[in-house]
Amino acid sequence: MVNPTLQRNIVGSPNKRRDGCSENATLADPVPTEINGTTPSPHSKSVFGKLHPSLIQVAISSSFYLIVGSVCFYLLRHQMKGHKTNGIVDSVYFCIVTMTTVGYGDITPNTVLTKLLACAYVFIGMALVGLVLSKAADYMIEKQETFLVKAIRRHRKVGPAETREEVETRGVGYKCLLVFVLLQLLLVAGVIFLATIEKLDLIDAFYCVCITITTLGYGDVSFRTKGGRVFAVFWILTSTILLAQFFLYIAELKTESRQRALVNWVLTRRFTKGDLETADTSLDGVVDASEFVLHKLKEMGKISQDDISIILKEFENLDVDKSRNLSSSDLMQTRSSQSER
Amino acid sequence: MVNPTLQRNIVGSPNKRRDGCSENATLADPVPTEINGTTPSPHSKSVFGKLHPSLIQVAISSSFYLIVGSVCFYLLRHQMKGHKTNGIVDSVYFCIVTMTTVGYGDITPNTVLTKLLACAYVFIGMALVGLVLSKAADYMIEKQETFLVKAIRRHRKVGPAETREEVETRGVGYKCLLVFVLLQLLLVAGVIFLATIEKLDLIDAFYCVCITITTLGYGDVSFRTKGGRVFAVFWILTSTILLAQFFLYIAELKTESRQRALVNWVLTRRFTKGDLETADTSLDGVVDASEFVLHKLKEMGKISQDDISIILKEFENLDVDKSRNLSSSDLMQTRSSQSER
Repeated sequence: MVNPTLQRNIVGSPNKRRDGCSENATLADPVPTEINGTTPSPHSKSVFGKLHPSLIQVAISSSFYLIVGSVCFYLLRHQMKGHKTNGIVDSVYFCIVTMTTVGYGDITPNTVLTKLLACAYVFIGMALVGLVLSKAADYMIEKQETFLVKAIRRHRKVGPAETREEVETRGVGYKCLLVFVLLQLLLVAGVIFLATIEKLDLIDAFYCVCITITTLGYGDVSFRTKGGRVFAVFWILTSTILLAQFFLYIAELKTESRQRALVNWVLTRRFTKGDLETADTSLDGVVDASEFVLHKLKEMGKISQDDISIILKEFENLDVDKSRNLSSSDLMQTRSSQSER
Repeated sequence: MVNPTLQRNIVGSPNKRRDGCSENATLADPVPTEINGTTPSPHSKSVFGKLHPSLIQVAISSSFYLIVGSVCFYLLRHQMKGHKTNGIVDSVYFCIVTMTTVGYGDITPNTVLTKLLACAYVFIGMALVGLVLSKAADYMIEKQETFLVKAIRRHRKVGPAETREEVETRGVGYKCLLVFVLLQLLLVAGVIFLATIEKLDLIDAFYCVCITITTLGYGDVSFRTKGGRVFAVFWILTSTILLAQFFLYIAELKTESRQRALVNWVLTRRFTKGDLETADTSLDGVVDASEFVLHKLKEMGKISQDDISIILKEFENLDVDKSRNLSSSDLMQTRSSQSER
């Protein structure tokens, strides 16, 4: 059984302590500090926001890239060969087929200029699609974090075990399932569309869908009508990105279960006298909770020695009286020395 | 300036302390515990080894998959249409072009059976190529870790600053450069080969190379001779995987610099009285080095509250006398209670 006091204090949960030291517990409660604007999570969130462009920004640049490409290939449409329908539709369709690396080959560049343009277009487009993918993943993760913060707030009302379970359900497994269901819907939509509008038989429609979402694109079957190509522009983009994302989540699921197995191994292996000595960084002969947590985190590979030493540098700077402990007096001395400068 | 004693002890570096407490330092030295077989890193390495298949295993299953596919499509070669050279070469070439999703379309399935087979083949092949990619990345990272361990050993002789720099040089930037150089070589090799053996002009050869390594594969230019297809089998596989890996490393580089910026932000932001209270998990009114490190790691998002609480559970179990400190007596009591059972 876990000592609820110790656990709640280290994890910084806002629950009230039940063992009488309520004054200390109130001091450690993160809620009032949050009102003062010093809680880490909203801050680090905004920093994240500043440091990496949002999914929307990436989506906007991708759309811009698509428009520029379509205009270029529309202007150069007489230097392209293959099955043509409407000039504008064909150029957008060509750009999408190129960016997603499907490459049916039903429309291909026919001159040196358009060939080199297509080469440049596929490289940058590939990078952009990759960026959209990673951003979409980031976005999901950030939403996940927001959910976690909410769950921790709710934590005051419900028990910790329930919250944990809820958070885990909404994890990678949930994302995997969501993407899988969406993929199935897109697959069915594609088959129905190809069978009705493009007049392919069911096997060929299914074959074309598979060949497309995997970006294989042999080109023996492709979208040949104007209406089909308009549909293809949206359908190809979403289905290829979703399939890639699906594979990404599957990989994530595997990594997670591997990580969990490692964590279990680290937790269940015997804590020896040698470990005790290694973990005792304060050299006082005993290992306190924080030292133990740091030791196990290092064993799990979650943190490295570099992470620790860079933070200790900051600790040294703050520990003005060199007592190896930070107290309010250290902070006041730091502040006065800063204002003196 | 960092207090070298404190830093070395927390990071567990094997350097001898310079301030007289050499007895304690020797106890904290990880080298003797390593001889007893209790140092975490080699253990967790072997666990990792057990938990995830090696790059070699993935490579073997990919080769097996390629052979099975080639045999199937060789037997069904009369149900395929397109430009044909040698039966065996064509089927291996078709499998590679399909697995890597290049999909030129110069050879395509022509019956329901071969179409469905191609659909199944591309899905599993795509997953396998993805696995090879992630394994190749894992392999590089593991090699990286081995290098790090060696660097830490060498650390005793050279200064810590030099070692850090060396490790960083060998990091993602190094991998990026390595893959980029290899890609350039493959690109040049491809162009020369296509120009000489396939008799394409230089622009078309370059165009074909770009269309292939991005897995676009329009199919207007492709490998049409028997010799060309033999070359293509090796060249397509390596170049498409390397390009994907290159994009992966670029993304990693970006993530790393973002992470570094976040770490800097967390380190340089002022440590307030509220932080002091939140970080003081032992409720003794002061924040020691381990508490400070844990607090900052949480701010950096490197560890979560879940990570901490799961470890604290184990701490509670080990802390038999409930002193909130682990000592040798706790360990002896745990051991005797275990042997009693």
